[in-house]
Amino acid sequence: MITREKQPPNLEMPFGTLDGFITPTERFYVRCHFPVPRIDEKTWRLRVEGSIGRPAQFSLVDLRELPSETITTTIECAGNSRVFLVPKVKGVQWELGAVGNARWTGVRLRHFLEQAQVRPEAREVILEGTDKGTIAEPPRPAGEIHFARSVPIGKAMDDVMLAYEMNGQPLTPSHGFPLRAVVPGWYGMASTKWLQRIIVSDQPFNGYYQTVDYAYWQRGDSGPTLAPLSEMPPKAQIARPEPGEVIAAGSNYLINGAAWVGEAEIVKVEVSIDRGKTWREAKLDDNPQKNAWRLWRMEWETPVAGSYTLMARATDSRGRIQALERNGDGGTYMIDHCLPIEVEVR
Amino acid sequence: MITREKQPPNLEMPFGTLDGFITPTERFYVRCHFPVPRIDEKTWRLRVEGSIGRPAQFSLVDLRELPSETITTTIECAGNSRVFLVPKVKGVQWELGAVGNARWTGVRLRHFLEQAQVRPEAREVILEGTDKGTIAEPPRPAGEIHFARSVPIGKAMDDVMLAYEMNGQPLTPSHGFPLRAVVPGWYGMASTKWLQRIIVSDQPFNGYYQTVDYAYWQRGDSGPTLAPLSEMPPKAQIARPEPGEVIAAGSNYLINGAAWVGEAEIVKVEVSIDRGKTWREAKLDDNPQKNAWRLWRMEWETPVAGSYTLMARATDSRGRIQALERNGDGGTYMIDHCLPIEVEVR
Repeated sequence: MITREKQPPNLEMPFGTLDGFITPTERFYVRCHFPVPRIDEKTWRLRVEGSIGRPAQFSLVDLRELPSETITTTIECAGNSRVFLVPKVKGVQWELGAVGNARWTGVRLRHFLEQAQVRPEAREVILEGTDKGTIAEPPRPAGEIHFARSVPIGKAMDDVMLAYEMNGQPLTPSHGFPLRAVVPGWYGMASTKWLQRIIVSDQPFNGYYQTVDYAYWQRGDSGPTLAPLSEMPPKAQIARPEPGEVIAAGSNYLINGAAWVGEAEIVKVEVSIDRGKTWREAKLDDNPQKNAWRLWRMEWETPVAGSYTLMARATDSRGRIQALERNGDGGTYMIDHCLPIEVEVR
Repeated sequence: MITREKQPPNLEMPFGTLDGFITPTERFYVRCHFPVPRIDEKTWRLRVEGSIGRPAQFSLVDLRELPSETITTTIECAGNSRVFLVPKVKGVQWELGAVGNARWTGVRLRHFLEQAQVRPEAREVILEGTDKGTIAEPPRPAGEIHFARSVPIGKAMDDVMLAYEMNGQPLTPSHGFPLRAVVPGWYGMASTKWLQRIIVSDQPFNGYYQTVDYAYWQRGDSGPTLAPLSEMPPKAQIARPEPGEVIAAGSNYLINGAAWVGEAEIVKVEVSIDRGKTWREAKLDDNPQKNAWRLWRMEWETPVAGSYTLMARATDSRGRIQALERNGDGGTYMIDHCLPIEVEVR
């Protein structure tokens, strides 16, 4: 793993090591805003509260007795590929590896909400973590805050999962032990780790990680408005070759990578070796699964010696095509344009 | 006037010159975010749009033919008294004079909304100015934006005024010519100047001046959440003596000032000459008017020579008493604690 920040741990996978559909837990990126909480599973409880008729608490033993499901979902950090932004912007300088695809086992959030007698005014569900700390830069709230994010009630009732296992094993501390949210199709900040509270709310939640952080300026008729980041737009990334790789001329090189999108399907990946002037279609893996990435590959008969800029671009089932150039509306997030990978053929 | 910023103009009244209930227009503070727009009243139009059945446009001639009202309202900049914050914070370093009380003549916003056939889903009314520019510091939207603020539909239908006159004269360019909003009881940022659009919205408006700027962290059960500034809490300010003033010992000095509050009434002002240890009640002017300040005064038989710290504190009809110490939740805004005025008796 590449360490981007030591304390709290922020680690990414060297994306060139991508070698299968499932990202092993030890190579799955770690994003922490505050120190990893040490949680005693015997005393830990998940509380369900807010705009509901029946507040409740659950121990880890309780959770494991509820009907479980397993889903395979890709989670990408909203700042993944930030190092490609010019000029440099604030935030963790992720390359390509703040993304992974894992199997998550747990209980659907819907299950808890159905038991809770949610009031008809309910609009959102806040997922609050145990992790906490203070924010240094204004505009910032005074004192300690917990990491927290919300999802609209519709999404909460649809497919959000509260997971206690990752790839068939209990969550590790840095991946949210004992319980984390998995919000399929959304950027990673929505999938709150170390869950402690599920709060049903009648109001849009304007917490720090929903407004100042992890938000973007959405264009509209009344000017730009601040909106929380949510779904992942279509994105293909090249795993091999890696940036700066040196490749033998006149050989057969297998370009490979992954492509993903939230709430849709990847239907095409194309590759360019001339910085987006011409494109060739890559071969996609069969059996796409909703909200999980698709691996892809393309054979490349390497040309004469020289510098080449490779790019991949994805098309999704809603007809969206990855853009060649950055659209600045995402600010320091949503780096979803075609990323240039410079290589040397010798 | 004291110039805090030359371009765009940001000017405050030397608060020690307070000498009457109405602040003359030329001594009323000026707060501009972008250059003062030059507006040709012949081509200017107010557009009413959004979640309504009947969009409409009004010229200044149209507006002057509508039924008019005149109200007296105090407007305070949300950053007034910022220079008293220790340590120093970002923003215009206002002393005491970014507040004024004027007579405003115009048409109630209600009148336009009643004609517009507002849809039942409507939640807020956005007041958009003609003034525009770019924001330098992140988190910021890309490109030019207009100044814009919203009020809840209930407030919009209650007492918000669209004013074309200030103190009996057409608005001056720096006070919003040809038309500005006056949102009684709210901090000044709500009273959008140089109005160009009234947009009825079904959603909470998350524009820049509602989230990153002119917002504060409201404490709540789910942690702090970002909320737009709105009503002015009770606040008394001392006009004379001024900070640093030298006063003759053994004389009769008339301490005076003003006190105001949004959506309530000032019922008491007290003065301390020992930094808040003991308090004496000041004499309030008669005939309080809702959302207009009350002038107050207190005779002070000046004591033996020495340094004294004067303070004033207001109590309102809702039982709220101005706090002695700053509560940090307001961040760089809502400086509503008792402000220490240091003087020298000789």
